[in-house]
Amino acid sequence: MRMSNAENIARTVEAYIDLAGKGSADGLVALYADNGTVEDPVGGEVHRGIEAVRSFYQSAIPGGSFAVDLLSLNVAGGEAAVHFQLTVDGRRLDVIDVMTFNDDAKITSMRSYHSPANWSQL
Amino acid sequence: MRMSNAENIARTVEAYIDLAGKGSADGLVALYADNGTVEDPVGGEVHRGIEAVRSFYQSAIPGGSFAVDLLSLNVAGGEAAVHFQLTVDGRRLDVIDVMTFNDDAKITSMRSYHSPANWSQL
Repeated sequence: MRMSNAENIARTVEAYIDLAGKGSADGLVALYADNGTVEDPVGGEVHRGIEAVRSFYQSAIPGGSFAVDLLSLNVAGGEAAVHFQLTVDGRRLDVIDVMTFNDDAKITSMRSYHSPANWSQL
Repeated sequence: MRMSNAENIARTVEAYIDLAGKGSADGLVALYADNGTVEDPVGGEVHRGIEAVRSFYQSAIPGGSFAVDLLSLNVAGGEAAVHFQLTVDGRRLDVIDVMTFNDDAKITSMRSYHSPANWSQL
């Protein structure tokens, strides 16, 4: 059965959250299109292409133990916005990512909205 | 004291959530730049210019009682992403909006991510 594009996109984002929680840089990179881009945080450097994306995730994943919890996954118009919380070292960061996709539901761009104001103590 | 752009943007979005909860179409429209645009939901028609934005909000605000609750407000790079819940008639809709702003922290674009999958029963 062929899934709708929205269903494929939702599966990609669910895999993204799962792999982020496992700290799997390689798994996350595999969700990207070859020409994918990452802007994290929004307003910062845009990492262009799969090797730049790989370098970003290899340096971005925290050491030690952490958790990633999905709060809302919103798919619309072939794009997605996702709110999740990253919990690490007794602190929590609220993150909202916006992603676009190609026809294979691979990520073509990810822009991550967060700032120091989005950290809270547990 | 001059506030940073990020603080002005946060105030605009906080006012947006407050006015949405009050059902004030005029108040919401007053937060927009004259050339502001609304795409709600993402993938749908783009309402361009303040009068089109006004018509959108006048028809979009639900009748009866409802509530709007802010879950996360993320400002980065002169943009904002906000996760809120709209509760109406015993049902709840999770919405993630992404907004851009001019130098006066007026909204220049609002794109709203939600689909029927984001409704839940209370």
